[in-house]
Formats: sequence, C-alpha cells, structure tokens
Amino acid sequence: MQLTAWVNGRFLPLDESTIHIEDRGFQFADGVYEVIACFGGKFLELDAHVDRLQRSCEGIGIRLLKSRPELIELIHETYRRNPFDHAMIYVQATRGVAPRSHLITQAVEPTLVITSRELPFPSSEKLSAGASAITLPDIRWKRCDIKSIALLASVIGKQEAARQNVDEAFWLDDEGHLLEGCATNCFAVINGDIVTHPLDHQVLGGITRYLALKVAREHGITVVERPWKLDEPGLTECLMSSTTNAVVAVSHIDKITIGDGKAGPVSLKLRQWMLDEFEAMKQ
Amino acid sequence: MQLTAWVNGRFLPLDESTIHIEDRGFQFADGVYEVIACFGGKFLELDAHVDRLQRSCEGIGIRLLKSRPELIELIHETYRRNPFDHAMIYVQATRGVAPRSHLITQAVEPTLVITSRELPFPSSEKLSAGASAITLPDIRWKRCDIKSIALLASVIGKQEAARQNVDEAFWLDDEGHLLEGCATNCFAVINGDIVTHPLDHQVLGGITRYLALKVAREHGITVVERPWKLDEPGLTECLMSSTTNAVVAVSHIDKITIGDGKAGPVSLKLRQWMLDEFEAMKQ
Repeated sequence: MQLTAWVNGRFLPLDESTIHIEDRGFQFADGVYEVIACFGGKFLELDAHVDRLQRSCEGIGIRLLKSRPELIELIHETYRRNPFDHAMIYVQATRGVAPRSHLITQAVEPTLVITSRELPFPSSEKLSAGASAITLPDIRWKRCDIKSIALLASVIGKQEAARQNVDEAFWLDDEGHLLEGCATNCFAVINGDIVTHPLDHQVLGGITRYLALKVAREHGITVVERPWKLDEPGLTECLMSSTTNAVVAVSHIDKITIGDGKAGPVSLKLRQWMLDEFEAMKQ
Repeated sequence: MQLTAWVNGRFLPLDESTIHIEDRGFQFADGVYEVIACFGGKFLELDAHVDRLQRSCEGIGIRLLKSRPELIELIHETYRRNPFDHAMIYVQATRGVAPRSHLITQAVEPTLVITSRELPFPSSEKLSAGASAITLPDIRWKRCDIKSIALLASVIGKQEAARQNVDEAFWLDDEGHLLEGCATNCFAVINGDIVTHPLDHQVLGGITRYLALKVAREHGITVVERPWKLDEPGLTECLMSSTTNAVVAVSHIDKITIGDGKAGPVSLKLRQWMLDEFEAMKQ
C-alpha cells in the first residue's frame, strides 16, 4: 500500500511528507500527539483521544486551527486513504514554524500531521508467556500528564530495555513505586484487586488504562488507584496497557519472576474482556 | 540575504529546507544541538562546541556519519553562505527517519541540519539596567547535562517568564538552589566571589559559562562552584550567560531587587573582559 499522510492542509504520499527544519516540533519538542487504534474501520475511543489531544494542546498553549469535527473527519479520511484492517492512526500537533528562539514572539500557525500505519500486535508467545521488563529511576520531566513529543527519556528507557533483552522499562519514583512504562501504563494484581498508580504529574492518563479499569470494574474486580511496589505481599500478577498492546501480562521484571512466570488468570481474563469489548464496538 | 541551510547532504534555500515527518527529532525529540557564535568570520570556541555535539550524540547513542573535520568544514561553509557580521550557527543532529516506534530496531542514517542566522544582542538599556528573571520549580528531565532538543519544559518556562514580563526563568531544585535558566547558565557574586552551581545532571556545561569562569579567574576573581540561593548573605549581583548573551547582569529576580537594581561592577567588568577576549580572538 502506498501510504498517504495529512501534512498541514493536504494529503501527500508519506515518502514526500515533510515539515520545515524550523518547525518547533523538530527544534524544541514543542508539540503533542495521539496514537489511535482502528479495527476494521471502527476507531477505539476516538472521542477520548481527540479530547486528550485538545487538552494537551491547551496544556502547552497551542491553539489548533481545526475544530473537533474537522479533526475527527481528517482522522477518518486519513484512515480511508490507508485502510489497514488493524490500523494505528498517529496525530501530531506542534506550535508551528518560526525562526529558532525558545520564546514565541509572533503568531504562528500550528503544524498538524496525521498518518496511518498497520497496528502491530503482541505475538501469541508473548501473550501466553507474558512480557518482560526492567525498572529504571524516573529521569523524565515532571509533566508526564501531558502527552508531549518530548520523549527522549522514554527512547533511552526503551533502548536500555532492549539492551537487557526485555520488552519495556517501568519508571520508579524515589520511593520505588512503579509509575508507568516508556510507552505503557502498568498495573499489579494484589490480593485479587487491580492496583495502579493514581493519575498525577508522573503518569499519563492512558485511554487504554481507562478502558482496562472500566472493564475490570464491570466484571466485578476491585480497582485501587494507589502507589504500589513490586515486593508487596499478595502481588500475583503484573500487566501493562497501551493502544498497541491492549493489556498484556508482564511475567518477569528485573529478572524476578512474577507469580508463576507466565500470563496469570486476571491478566488473561482482562485481555479477553477488552478484546470482546473491541469486537462489540465493531458491530 | 537569501538564507541557505545544510540538510542531510546538501545546501538548500532555508525556505525549502525540510525533513521527513517521521524524523525521530520531530516525533521523539531524539536529537541534540549546538548554537555557535561567529564574529566577523571567527567562531567562538568552535572546537569546544563540536566536542560537546559529539559527546551529546554519544550520550544518547547517535553515531554521526560526519567526522570532526567534516563537521567543522560544514559549519564554516554554512557560515560562508550566510555571512552575517555576527552570526549564530545552529547545528542539530537527530537519530534519523524511521517508522514511528520508541525503540529503534533498524539502522538509520542520522539527520544533520545546519543553519546560520544573525546573532541577536542584548540592548544597551538591558546591559546597563540588568535583565530580569523569575524562578520556577525545576520540571525538566534529569539529564540536563545532555544538550538535547527535548526542550519543551524550557519553552514553557520562557513563556511563563514572558507572561510575567521578565527575560528569563531560572530553575530551582527542591531545596531552592538556582540551577540554570531556560537558555542560560546563572551566577551570583557573593562576597566578591563568582558562585555558580557545579556541573551535574541538572546543569548544562555551557561553553559561555566555561569561558566566563575562565576569564574571571584570569582576572583574579575567585570562582566557587557550589549550590547557591538568592537569600545568601553577601550576595550583591546575579548574572546569566549564553552564546547569545555572553554575560548579562540580572538585577531583578522574582520582583526582588538584586544589589542596587542595575548592572553591578563585577557583571560589567566580566562582560567587558569577555568582549575583549572575543575581539582578541578576531585578530
């Protein structure tokens, strides 16, 4: 498939899709983004993603020129031009192009880029064996609640995870609580409850995180949002969530085996409930 | 002057200088940069800037394809094509273009961009009255020793400074020590000594910082690298340094008057010594 991208007002072949070298997204990480899953033409929580994009823009003072309905239509049209069965729509907004200076002294037109690529899936081995992770001291900035493109810390974390042959790195606060991963939220099953760090400046309000907690509650599982550690008594499973993973069990962290070292029952049930939810949504 | 930029292997009119939308500098802030001053064709500490660029690249695992002599020649050639009397050469390297994923799984060719623009100067009013600043709790990531393009926190700091009608925002650590500014290093004069935060993960090793400390020492001023606060007894002046400012006195911080509220004697002398040094370098 010849891929097509929306770039500042027009659709272009992805290969020819460029932005100016003085785009503030390129020089200052002065922008925000969303990754949205689309199954057979049905978007997962599109409204929530567009809401969050707008909140992220407000959070750093970018005024998008597109209205909410226009954004939604552009996302649909980008998908129609790149109609993968399972697609991953990427939307990025930046403050726009200006001669390089930290301070914006002139009105600039924000940059808007939308692409659609095939959504990757975890392998069936990974789903049954569980993923693996390391923990790292949190070196990120203190506004992780904003979904910004200032992602270098997470790139470094992912590189370190790969160097240690694991899938993800989870950030630890100064007291050793697990906050979230480089590109995932993370959870524990403790005495049968699902436990995850509350939303604050250290954690992104993941839309898949939200969905996972909602589905868990609907199935009678107690959800507790509080700081948690790996060595808590009663901890039997760990999980991570993201648009590209839905939820996946994490069976090894820092070479320590979690539970019985494979995807546990709560993780597997929760994943199935979420996939059922996605299926129902496609009807 | 029609501006010209070096972009990945060729010189182009600045207006037509673009990079791909999947450049990791644009999507992940996965890159580093330098800003180099050039006076009448003579570069200020070019070797030190190229050294630091190479260290920054190593710090995040980018392998530049250009050798050190090639980089220096490209910087010279970019200047020759944009020969401002006082120029500011901007060099940016990113990990390159790849389908979006935090983790790099394939070898990619790094992106290299070089531009030259006119170097702005502080106004004479600012030089005599001193600049103004606010302090803000440090929200940046914990590797500020790497000169990365993940600059969104500093953009937000500069916006807040502008909103409060001041020139700069200085970051405070948890104990209230002044670390550095959004685009400057900062200093105090305490009992006649120049005091500045030691180089660690919270502070960039500014090349103008280094020059200022060297020149101060050469003129018999004691330099002390230690954490410092605004309310220390004996504090009579504050200063900030950067490629675009050299050193400039800061006479008001958080609406508090420093010393007698204008550029103090040590600040003025140090600035003059630095300008003399720059002049000597041009001979």
